[in-house]
Amino acid sequence: MNAPELNAIDRLVASLSKLPGIGKKSASRLAYHILDMDTSYARALAKELQTLHEAIKRCSVCGAFTETDPCPICSDISRDARTICVVERPQDVRIIEESREFNGRFHVLGGLIAPLDGVNPGDLSIGQLLSRVRRDGVREVILAMNPTVEGDTTALYLQNQLKDAGVEVSRLASGLPVGGDLEYTDRLTLSRSFRGRFKM
Amino acid sequence: MNAPELNAIDRLVASLSKLPGIGKKSASRLAYHILDMDTSYARALAKELQTLHEAIKRCSVCGAFTETDPCPICSDISRDARTICVVERPQDVRIIEESREFNGRFHVLGGLIAPLDGVNPGDLSIGQLLSRVRRDGVREVILAMNPTVEGDTTALYLQNQLKDAGVEVSRLASGLPVGGDLEYTDRLTLSRSFRGRFKM
Repeated sequence: MNAPELNAIDRLVASLSKLPGIGKKSASRLAYHILDMDTSYARALAKELQTLHEAIKRCSVCGAFTETDPCPICSDISRDARTICVVERPQDVRIIEESREFNGRFHVLGGLIAPLDGVNPGDLSIGQLLSRVRRDGVREVILAMNPTVEGDTTALYLQNQLKDAGVEVSRLASGLPVGGDLEYTDRLTLSRSFRGRFKM
Repeated sequence: MNAPELNAIDRLVASLSKLPGIGKKSASRLAYHILDMDTSYARALAKELQTLHEAIKRCSVCGAFTETDPCPICSDISRDARTICVVERPQDVRIIEESREFNGRFHVLGGLIAPLDGVNPGDLSIGQLLSRVRRDGVREVILAMNPTVEGDTTALYLQNQLKDAGVEVSRLASGLPVGGDLEYTDRLTLSRSFRGRFKM
């Protein structure tokens, strides 16, 4: 039985429970904590959530999340347009930026090839990547997919597609634990995997 | 360096990081997850947060969080007004309600006596409790504070204050958790479960 008087709290708990890694008990703890905090916190968080989807678009060049189009990285002439780092998801751009290891541009695939899950090469932004490579005279494409079966499959597919483009194709070195995830990799490990990237 | 283009996401991550148990990485994962979800989710959560502090008041009788005053528990004539369960925080009411074990009324102290932290009996709603006990002809006061040093101190203080009120004072039993293991039980808990052993 939920105490019937706690409706506004119940609704907040139910919403928070939908987030990954947050069960009903954690959601309840968070809700009561927010209630204990100053009203301004809940208001600020509410406003950020309210405007999030309007404020954030996808960059029409690289596919990263951005408030301006093209994104600041694609518009930054101090960044090497001839080196493209290919990542699976928009949030991977942030993770790599935080390692401060890379000064080129990005390309977000929007997923990995996984025929069993119904994701085929045509579902990813591979055509756009090939156009960019040709148009911008790209010299190196760094494949920064996670070292998983789908990541390896996608890397091999891209290597094949880029074979005749006269471009060097490399992949992030080991340092990433096999079966792991970019998101949970520390900066130094990520940094090493950049320096140790190998030709394919 | 935070990628400068991710301002709306950065702000959300910063706000989420202020919640208990949510570090920067979890906050980032949550923010991107919310961005991936339908806009309606973020909107609904925003609205719940926006109106939370307005919707939720404290019950003027028992101190629980409520949308109406007095709260539904204090207004429910089917609940035994002569038994009061005393808890530390408003959220403890919810936890006990979910156990469906108790059909009396509640009283929220608003904290525990902790002189070193500057919390003295006068800071808690002890006067209101004593008034209720006298006014409503209460027969039993169940002390449901946590079995900690502060919980014990507060229980002893209340027991003393209620001595002359002609009311029975009890405290929640402390001992082995159901499904627990002797081997992983700390000495103090084991000691209490010995003292609180019951005839079979």
